[in-house]
Amino acid sequence: MYPNILRHPGPTPIPKKVELAMAQDMISHRSAEFVKLYRETTERVKPVFGTKQDILLLPSGGTAAMEAAVANITSPGDEVVVVTVGAFGDYFVSICEKYGLNVHKLQKKWGEACTKEELADFLKPLSNIKAVFATYNETSTGVLNPVEQLGEAVREHSDALFIVDGVSAIGGAPAEMDKWGIDILVTGSQKAMMLPPGLALLAVSDKAWKVIESNDSSAYYLSLLSYREWNEKGMTPNTPAVSLIMGLSAVCDLIDEEGGFSKTVERHEVMKNMVRKSMNALSIDLLTADEYASPTITAIRTPEGLDLGSYISHLKKKYHLDFAGGLGPLQGKIFRFGHMGYCFPSDILEAVSLMEAGLQDFSYPFEPGAGVKAAQEVYLSSLRKS
Amino acid sequence: MYPNILRHPGPTPIPKKVELAMAQDMISHRSAEFVKLYRETTERVKPVFGTKQDILLLPSGGTAAMEAAVANITSPGDEVVVVTVGAFGDYFVSICEKYGLNVHKLQKKWGEACTKEELADFLKPLSNIKAVFATYNETSTGVLNPVEQLGEAVREHSDALFIVDGVSAIGGAPAEMDKWGIDILVTGSQKAMMLPPGLALLAVSDKAWKVIESNDSSAYYLSLLSYREWNEKGMTPNTPAVSLIMGLSAVCDLIDEEGGFSKTVERHEVMKNMVRKSMNALSIDLLTADEYASPTITAIRTPEGLDLGSYISHLKKKYHLDFAGGLGPLQGKIFRFGHMGYCFPSDILEAVSLMEAGLQDFSYPFEPGAGVKAAQEVYLSSLRKS
Repeated sequence: MYPNILRHPGPTPIPKKVELAMAQDMISHRSAEFVKLYRETTERVKPVFGTKQDILLLPSGGTAAMEAAVANITSPGDEVVVVTVGAFGDYFVSICEKYGLNVHKLQKKWGEACTKEELADFLKPLSNIKAVFATYNETSTGVLNPVEQLGEAVREHSDALFIVDGVSAIGGAPAEMDKWGIDILVTGSQKAMMLPPGLALLAVSDKAWKVIESNDSSAYYLSLLSYREWNEKGMTPNTPAVSLIMGLSAVCDLIDEEGGFSKTVERHEVMKNMVRKSMNALSIDLLTADEYASPTITAIRTPEGLDLGSYISHLKKKYHLDFAGGLGPLQGKIFRFGHMGYCFPSDILEAVSLMEAGLQDFSYPFEPGAGVKAAQEVYLSSLRKS
Repeated sequence: MYPNILRHPGPTPIPKKVELAMAQDMISHRSAEFVKLYRETTERVKPVFGTKQDILLLPSGGTAAMEAAVANITSPGDEVVVVTVGAFGDYFVSICEKYGLNVHKLQKKWGEACTKEELADFLKPLSNIKAVFATYNETSTGVLNPVEQLGEAVREHSDALFIVDGVSAIGGAPAEMDKWGIDILVTGSQKAMMLPPGLALLAVSDKAWKVIESNDSSAYYLSLLSYREWNEKGMTPNTPAVSLIMGLSAVCDLIDEEGGFSKTVERHEVMKNMVRKSMNALSIDLLTADEYASPTITAIRTPEGLDLGSYISHLKKKYHLDFAGGLGPLQGKIFRFGHMGYCFPSDILEAVSLMEAGLQDFSYPFEPGAGVKAAQEVYLSSLRKS
């Protein structure tokens, strides 16, 4: 009966309009109806990526799109740099290693971002770097890497392609793929894009297409040249995730309803600030500095003296509030509060209120209402501005 | 307003119960709820494959599952045999070639099946064959290869693994993976499985797991060892297609409601016979001999003297009846009548009636009602038997 309040880093709640759009009658992926849906929808997604390039749709998870980037631009033995600030940066490392690349790993402490200067210093002594891989939003730590600046460092110190995993950012964080010089930007459907899992979105720069054209890639299902060829016809090489594309069209409607993508980005910024200010007011520490804080997910340290596992499972059991735990070295040390996609300031007020209720159950010393009050202030102030 | 009558080889119509199941609230793929859903559902799918092996679920199209089979069991330079009787057999050829395998291609004329004797004769002079690939149901021609007998030929004349693409068969055709000695059986969600596209299902024999364990595969997203490892925990390596798995659970309910999978197979057999007998009655030729006719899709030759393109687009425009055309060398020569998944004898009567209406519009010489009458007879006779 009680709804589960899913405040995870993804999959995230699905809007009713998207569910209904996905329940439309099935159509053939080789029909004129599909071509119209595909062309219109991929066109409408471009502002979310900040690109004029075509948006390619793969019927797969975001991981497959990350692998597609690696598989299509590199050959075994190529030198690459991977910037990793957490679990999903490490993903890129393991994909690159699996493909037999020589990986130069710029590893940051979990919870920190990589700065332009750090990447520049790392690149200076290296040569023949084929590609630099980075995570835009590190889901495991709630860090938003400054990809615009990282792109500058890549261009100033190498001829490398700049490949960005945008999986938990795109749809909630600002993105200017073309302006920022990102050569391949990938994301998945189940995070800020407000869709169920199963669709990967990907765009490729002219510079990267040239590399792909001359590369003898082993990719078959993930062959981007094949996707580009079929994209010309308004179709995909294999059966696409038709219902997810119907849903994606409804997502574009919702973004239009909100007043365009810049408004969506503003809402995420407000939600981020609401969560952070409320935790400050409750004297609960955040993992990440404000400067690099993610607009889609916040990593919160264990409230002092509390057993984190008990607190999180209590919130789920008693209040149906569902947070995600920490990964790897942060397991038991943080929990993750997702605020992306179909999530609103009202949801933040609800979740912070329930967190406070839970803290009272644990006799945690704090002033009840302080967190909610701080979140309200951020919200009200944002409404006055807009 | 008028519903589109989708009689395609896939994607196929989605049952309302499946649509509603897919619209359930999203859950985390690392939650206890997901583990329960995953474990129960994959267990319930086993009879549809005819296997005691675990069913692995990939968030991808069927093509990716075919590639997973190739990528996980072979290494460049391996000798393999591919039995191809149409466009989807050729898929396996091109995947194997992409992976640098030495492909021995047993090519049959489109519209014919491969017999046990033909495969046996083909295998006899060969040695060191790592795997034999075959298509169970060739979607481009409506041929159901006798995979049970092909499996016997493989075992009698080689030590090869026997890999079967079951994409447009599984869920509608009988399948006894274990008894028939199939080592990897793959399918996609959007055909006889009554789901939208985006989920691949795959099972692996003990013999194939041994090969996979000792093989140094380059697969990352498609690493079956990784799927097996996570399957032990009731999860998948990456974010799975959660809503499609919810839908798959509803598909299992529907199969139970029908009286078990053998009843589902019987229904497809009846529909196949209805289509074939009605075409006989209309003196319209079929591409394939009855012996190897597919229970899920029938390839029908152009009615004599008719312009096929005009007839098919007339049926779509005037009657909203949506057939698929021919592929490759059969383009313009056949059309394909899909009768798989959420399709019933009543749908066959409807489609044949509308075909007859269309034939009258074209002043085609035939006895109106003859096709429907023949289909009715098959249907009524099946009801008397059951």
